[in-house]
Amino acid sequence: MVNSSPENTAASTAGKKNSRPDGRAADQLREVTFNRGWTQNPEGSVLVEFGNTRVLCTASVQPGVPRWRRGSGEGWVTAEYSMLPRSTHSRSDRESIKGKIGGRTHEISRLIGRSLRACIDFRALGENTITLDCDVLQADGGTRTASITGSYIALHDAVTWLKSKELARKPDKILKDSVAAISVGVVDGQPVLDLPYVEDVKAEVDMNVVVTGSGEFVEVQGTGEDSTFSRNQLNDLLDLAEKGCKELATMQARTILGA
Amino acid sequence: MVNSSPENTAASTAGKKNSRPDGRAADQLREVTFNRGWTQNPEGSVLVEFGNTRVLCTASVQPGVPRWRRGSGEGWVTAEYSMLPRSTHSRSDRESIKGKIGGRTHEISRLIGRSLRACIDFRALGENTITLDCDVLQADGGTRTASITGSYIALHDAVTWLKSKELARKPDKILKDSVAAISVGVVDGQPVLDLPYVEDVKAEVDMNVVVTGSGEFVEVQGTGEDSTFSRNQLNDLLDLAEKGCKELATMQARTILGA
Amino acid sequence: MVNSSPENTAASTAGKKNSRPDGRAADQLREVTFNRGWTQNPEGSVLVEFGNTRVLCTASVQPGVPRWRRGSGEGWVTAEYSMLPRSTHSRSDRESIKGKIGGRTHEISRLIGRSLRACIDFRALGENTITLDCDVLQADGGTRTASITGSYIALHDAVTWLKSKELARKPDKILKDSVAAISVGVVDGQPVLDLPYVEDVKAEVDMNVVVTGSGEFVEVQGTGEDSTFSRNQLNDLLDLAEKGCKELATMQARTILGA
Amino acid sequence: MVNSSPENTAASTAGKKNSRPDGRAADQLREVTFNRGWTQNPEGSVLVEFGNTRVLCTASVQPGVPRWRRGSGEGWVTAEYSMLPRSTHSRSDRESIKGKIGGRTHEISRLIGRSLRACIDFRALGENTITLDCDVLQADGGTRTASITGSYIALHDAVTWLKSKELARKPDKILKDSVAAISVGVVDGQPVLDLPYVEDVKAEVDMNVVVTGSGEFVEVQGTGEDSTFSRNQLNDLLDLAEKGCKELATMQARTILGA
Amino acid sequence: MVNSSPENTAASTAGKKNSRPDGRAADQLREVTFNRGWTQNPEGSVLVEFGNTRVLCTASVQPGVPRWRRGSGEGWVTAEYSMLPRSTHSRSDRESIKGKIGGRTHEISRLIGRSLRACIDFRALGENTITLDCDVLQADGGTRTASITGSYIALHDAVTWLKSKELARKPDKILKDSVAAISVGVVDGQPVLDLPYVEDVKAEVDMNVVVTGSGEFVEVQGTGEDSTFSRNQLNDLLDLAEKGCKELATMQARTILGA
Amino acid sequence: MVNSSPENTAASTAGKKNSRPDGRAADQLREVTFNRGWTQNPEGSVLVEFGNTRVLCTASVQPGVPRWRRGSGEGWVTAEYSMLPRSTHSRSDRESIKGKIGGRTHEISRLIGRSLRACIDFRALGENTITLDCDVLQADGGTRTASITGSYIALHDAVTWLKSKELARKPDKILKDSVAAISVGVVDGQPVLDLPYVEDVKAEVDMNVVVTGSGEFVEVQGTGEDSTFSRNQLNDLLDLAEKGCKELATMQARTILGA
Repeated sequence: MVNSSPENTAASTAGKKNSRPDGRAADQLREVTFNRGWTQNPEGSVLVEFGNTRVLCTASVQPGVPRWRRGSGEGWVTAEYSMLPRSTHSRSDRESIKGKIGGRTHEISRLIGRSLRACIDFRALGENTITLDCDVLQADGGTRTASITGSYIALHDAVTWLKSKELARKPDKILKDSVAAISVGVVDGQPVLDLPYVEDVKAEVDMNVVVTGSGEFVEVQGTGEDSTFSRNQLNDLLDLAEKGCKELATMQARTILGA
Repeated sequence: MVNSSPENTAASTAGKKNSRPDGRAADQLREVTFNRGWTQNPEGSVLVEFGNTRVLCTASVQPGVPRWRRGSGEGWVTAEYSMLPRSTHSRSDRESIKGKIGGRTHEISRLIGRSLRACIDFRALGENTITLDCDVLQADGGTRTASITGSYIALHDAVTWLKSKELARKPDKILKDSVAAISVGVVDGQPVLDLPYVEDVKAEVDMNVVVTGSGEFVEVQGTGEDSTFSRNQLNDLLDLAEKGCKELATMQARTILGA
Repeated sequence: MVNSSPENTAASTAGKKNSRPDGRAADQLREVTFNRGWTQNPEGSVLVEFGNTRVLCTASVQPGVPRWRRGSGEGWVTAEYSMLPRSTHSRSDRESIKGKIGGRTHEISRLIGRSLRACIDFRALGENTITLDCDVLQADGGTRTASITGSYIALHDAVTWLKSKELARKPDKILKDSVAAISVGVVDGQPVLDLPYVEDVKAEVDMNVVVTGSGEFVEVQGTGEDSTFSRNQLNDLLDLAEKGCKELATMQARTILGA
Repeated sequence: MVNSSPENTAASTAGKKNSRPDGRAADQLREVTFNRGWTQNPEGSVLVEFGNTRVLCTASVQPGVPRWRRGSGEGWVTAEYSMLPRSTHSRSDRESIKGKIGGRTHEISRLIGRSLRACIDFRALGENTITLDCDVLQADGGTRTASITGSYIALHDAVTWLKSKELARKPDKILKDSVAAISVGVVDGQPVLDLPYVEDVKAEVDMNVVVTGSGEFVEVQGTGEDSTFSRNQLNDLLDLAEKGCKELATMQARTILGA
Repeated sequence: MVNSSPENTAASTAGKKNSRPDGRAADQLREVTFNRGWTQNPEGSVLVEFGNTRVLCTASVQPGVPRWRRGSGEGWVTAEYSMLPRSTHSRSDRESIKGKIGGRTHEISRLIGRSLRACIDFRALGENTITLDCDVLQADGGTRTASITGSYIALHDAVTWLKSKELARKPDKILKDSVAAISVGVVDGQPVLDLPYVEDVKAEVDMNVVVTGSGEFVEVQGTGEDSTFSRNQLNDLLDLAEKGCKELATMQARTILGA
Repeated sequence: MVNSSPENTAASTAGKKNSRPDGRAADQLREVTFNRGWTQNPEGSVLVEFGNTRVLCTASVQPGVPRWRRGSGEGWVTAEYSMLPRSTHSRSDRESIKGKIGGRTHEISRLIGRSLRACIDFRALGENTITLDCDVLQADGGTRTASITGSYIALHDAVTWLKSKELARKPDKILKDSVAAISVGVVDGQPVLDLPYVEDVKAEVDMNVVVTGSGEFVEVQGTGEDSTFSRNQLNDLLDLAEKGCKELATMQARTILGA
C-alpha cells in the first residue's frame, strides 16, 4: 500500500483561519491512499481512500468495442459507479432491487467515463474496451472525485497488462496524460478544498473539477442549489481545485512509480 | 407571440472574424422567441425557440409536496426533460418503450430542476409542487439551455396563477430572481456562443452556464471529452456566457411585461 | 398552414336541435387544420388540430423491416402514440418514468398502426419501415382519430420523400387509398359527431370509426361501458361516422393538393 | 360438467354452402362447454371451452375498491387475461419474464373488464372488487370471446357467494343482465361465426361482438387489417354475431340453472 | 387418464399413530394422477395431481440451444414455474404485472430445471432445447415436487416425439433414468410424507427431495426456518422421501407403459 | 483483525490422500478471517475471508418491520446478497443495469435470510428490522457460506448496538444460538470440505450446509446437476459439513470474545 501523505500542503495553510471540522486548512487535502492490486481478478484494482471515503476501482479489459464503434479501429473506455447500500450513514435501497438506476448514479457514471476518456488515445488502444467499476464501500463526501482519481491508477495498470499481453496497437501511446479530480465548495462563505460529508451538506456552492497531470481542465461542474455564486467566488474555487489536483497528480505518479 | 429579436448584439460583432455556419458573430445569440400560453391546460405554458430548437415548457401546480418534505411548510420545484422520438435528425427509441430513462435524460432533468429552484423562495411558495415539463419538439443544439430559459417564464406564469387563486403563502416573494441559460463552446479553437447542432458535434469544449437576472452563477458545466481546456479558455467561455445570459434575461423580462 | 374549414356541414344541421356545448350541430365536425412540415427533421410532419385537440404526427422512414418480415420483399408501417404529461387537464405521470406503457397507450398505438396499414401496398413499399409518431400536445377528445387523420398526411409526405429518393420499389403504388377517422357517440340520448372532452366523459356510447377515402370501413370500435346500445343506435352512429370521414377525406385531399 | 350442445343451430344451416374446415355451417357455433367449480379456491371458477379453445375463468372477491373509488359506495370489476406459454402452436415467452405486458394482452384484459362491468350495478355491489382472471390453457381462436362468456358464469357464482356471506349491499340487484361474446369474420368472402385459429389467420375482416342477454350491444370491435369492409358486410357480421350471442346466452342460463 | 392409486402404501402404515388432517399414514402419499396429452399443442403435456395440487406440465421442443452452448453438439433442458393468481387461497398479483419474477418463482424454476437435467444425456439430445412449463392451476402444498414428477412424463413424451421426427442424435439414449420428487417435513414433531398446505404452514422442518428411478439422489433441500433439526431427524426424513419417490417412480413407469 | 487460524485441523488430515489444488486435506478449511468494524457506518460490519473469497457483511438496524408483520410485536431479519461485477474472473453485468435480479442472487439472498433468522428470537428483538447486506468483493468459491458465517458476527454486533441503545425488548435473549455455514462436495469421487472455485466447477455434487453453534441443522442444500449421489455419499458429506461448521463456530466465538 502506498500511503501518499500530503505533507507539502502543511506549510501553505499557515496564516489562514482554520475552522474546518477535521482541523484541515482550507486548501488542504484529506489523507489520500491508493491500495493497488487490492483484488486479484481485475486487470487493474485500486482501493482508494480520501479520508474516510473508500472506493474500490477496478479496470476490466474486454476485447471488442460497442456496436456503434466496431470497425473504427478505435477502443472505448466506460465507467459504472455504485454505492453499497450501507456505505452511507443510513441504508439506501439497492438499485438492482428497485429495478432502475437513479439519476445521480447515471450522472456520476457518465462523469467518470468522460473524465478517463480524456487521457486515452483510442487509436493506440485499438478495438478493446476498458470498463471502470467504482464501488463505494464507505462514503464520506467526494466519492466521485475519489473514483476518478483512483480509476486513473486502475486504468494505468490495465494498460500495463495490455502491453504485457501484446493486445493493444501501440500500448505506449494509450495514456496521453494522467487525470485527477477534487471537490471544492463554499462553506460558511469560505472556499474550501476536498469536502467531507459534514461540510458537503451545508455547502452553499459545490464544485467538482477534473484536471490532467499537465494542468489542463477536463471537467468543471459547479452548482449552487440553494444559493448562487459570483465570478470571483468561481475563480477562488478554481484556484483551490487546480492546487488540489496538482497534488493528487504528484501522488498518482509516486504510486505508479512504486515510491 | 413575443418575438424577442436580439438586435443589440448586432453591433458587438463588428470586427470579429465570422466563420459560423449561420453567419452569426461568435458572441451572438440565435433568434429567440417565447410563445406564452401555447397550450391551455397548464398553469404556465411556453413554446420557446432558440433558432430551430423548439421546446414546449409547461408548469403544472399541484398542492402538496413529496413525502420527504411534508410538514416542512416549504414547497418544491422539479423538472422532467424528454425528447420526442423524431425531434432529432434520425429517430431515437422512446424511453417509455425501452422501459427506462437514459443517463442523459436524467442528467438534464436534474439540471433544469436545480436551476429553477435557485430562483424560488420555498417558504413563500408553501407546500405546493410545481413540475416543469420540457418536451423537445425539434432539436438543433442547446435544448437544455432553451428548456431552462423557457421554463422560467412558464414558472413565472404558474406563480401568477397561484397568486390569482390565493394558494401560496406569500406569492409576491416566491420568485427571488429570474434564471436563464446558454451554451458556449470552443469550435475550431474559437470560443462561440449558443451552438447549433452542427457546431455542437465538432466542439472541442462544451459548456452550459446558468445565470440569474442579477448576474450570479447558478450552474457551470464544462466538459472537454475529446479535448481539454486551459484556464484562459475557461475564462473566455464564461465571459461569453455571461453576455448571452444577460441578453436572455432582458428578453425574458420584456416577454413577461408583454412588451 | 392549410385551414380546412368544414363549411359544407353548416347547412346540413338546419332544423336539428342544437344543445352541444360548443354550439355545433349533431353531425358537425370541429374546425380541422393540418399544418404540414411543422418540424423539419421527419420525412413527414403534420401538426393536426381537431378543435382544441392538437397532435404532432411525424412519419420516419427507415430502411429495412422488423426481423420477422426480413426477406419478404415487403415493407412495414407501425405507430406509437403518446400524450405529453400536461396535454390533459391534470398532469399525468410519464410512462417513461413509470417504466411501462399503459394499456390505453398500447391500444391506441395498435389502432393507429392497423388503420394506416390498410392503405399501404407493402410490396410496392419494398423493405422499408415507416414509423408514425403521434404525440398529443393538447388533448380535448378525439386524440386517436386526429392522430389517424393527421398521420395519413404525414405518411403521404413520407411516401413522396421515398419517391424523390428513389428508395421504394413502386412508389406510385404504395398508397392504395386515403384513411381518416372520427369519433361518434351517444350523449344525453342523442348521437353526435366528433366529441370534445366535455361530451366524451358523459357519453353513454363511444365509438371510433376509421374509413377509407373510397368509403370502406377499416375499423369500428364501439363501446358502452356504463351503458349498452341497440342495433338502431349503432346504425345511426355509423351514418354519422361515414358522413364525418367523408368530409375529412375531402379536407385531406385538399391539403395534399395544397389548395 | 354442463355440456351445452348447440343443437338448435343445426337446422338453420341447411341450404347454405358449407366449406368450413370443421364442417360447420357459416352461422354455427363450435361445441361450447362450461365446467363450473373446476378449481376450489376462487369464489367463481369456470373452465370454458369453445371447441379446442380452453380458458380457466376465475372470479376473486376482495373487500375494498381501488383508491380512486374509495368512499364512493360503489364496487369495481376488473379482468386480467393471459395465455400460458404453450397454449399456442409454438411456445411464446412469458410476459413475467419479459418484464412487461404486451399490447394485445392489455387490450384484451381491458375488453373483458369493460364487457363484464356492463352487467353490474356497482351500488348494489357496494365497495367490493371482483377480479376476473382468464388464463388460456389451450388456444384455438376466440380466446377473448370465450373468456368473456365464461367469466360471466364465474362472476355469477362470485355474486352468489357474496350473497351467501351477506357481504354485498343489495346482492339480488348486482347482476343487471348476462353478457356473452362471439367472434365473426369474413373468410374467403363469406361471413362466418366463431372462427377457429385456422380461419382466423386468413380472415379478411375480424370482429368481436359483446351482447347482453336482452340483446343490447356492449362492444363492437371490427377490424380489417389487410383489407376493408363495406357497410353491407358489416351488417351481415352483426346479424351473425347477434344470433351467436343469443345462443350463448341461452346456454349460460341453462348452465346456471344447472340443467 | 391413468389413475395411479398408491394402494401398496396402505399396509405399511398399520400400527403407526395417525393424526394427519386427511387421515393418511405418516409415510403415505396423497392420491397421484397423471393426465397425459391434456393439451394438444405441446410435444408433451401432463396434468399432474398430488391430491388437490394440480399442475399443467408441458414440454416444448425447439431446435437450437442458448447462445453459450452453440456449437457444443449438446442440447439443453430448462424449466419455468408459475402459479395462476387464484391457484392459492387468496389471490396473488401476477408477476407479469409486477414486472418482475419473485425469488420463490426463480428458485423453483431453477430446481425443476436442474432436476430434469439430471436424467438427460445432452450429447444424445443434440442441439435441441426442451422447455418445461409448470403452471400451477390449483395449489395445495407440494407444487414443486408435483411439477418435477409430472414434468418427467412430459419430458418423456417430448423425447418420444423427437424420436418419431428423427430430430435427435441418439433418441434412445436421451433419457438416462427417470426422476421424481416429494416433500417431507416434521409436523408436530413427527416426520411425514407429502405435505398438503395445511401441514406445510405449520411444519417445523420442510424438505424437498428429488430421486432418480434407480434410487440415487439428485437434490436434497431441507430447511428449518423457525426451527432446526438434528442429524437423526434428517435421516428419518430422507428415509420417508426415498420411500415416496420409489412409489412415484413406479407410478411414472406404469403411466408411461399405459397400464 | 482477528485471524482465526484453523490449526486444529492439521492433525486430522494425516494419513489421507491429499490431491487438492491448494494442498489442503479433504476435511480442512481454508484460512478464515473476520475483520470486524471494517466500515464505520453500519451497526455491524465484518469483512470475512474464506481463502481468497472476500465478502463485506454489514448489518443495518431500522426501527419498524415490514407491513405484513406490523403490530405483531415481533422483529424481522432479512438479507441481500450481491456480487461486484469484477469480483469474478470475468466481468459480469450489474443487475441494477439489467434492471432485474437474477435467480441465483434471489436464491442466495433468501438462503442467507432464512439461515440467520434461525438464531433469532423475534419477540425479544421487538419490532425492529435487521438487514444483512453481503457484497462479494472477491469470489473464489463458497461466497454464500462465507456470507452466512460472516453475517452472524455482523448480526451479533448489531444486537450489541441495540442493547447499548436500549432499543430492543429483551436484548439478551435476541440471539438464541450462533450460525455458520460451509460448502462440501464430491470432487473426482472424493468428498471434500470448503471448495474453492477451481474445485467447485468440476464438483459432481455440491452441497451447502448451515449448522448452529449447538450442532443442529438449519439448512441442507445438496445438488448433483450433472451427476447424482448415493445415500452413503450424502452421509459422508454431512459428516464433513458438521466438522467444518463446528470449527467455524469456534472461530466465531473466539472472534466475538476478541481473543
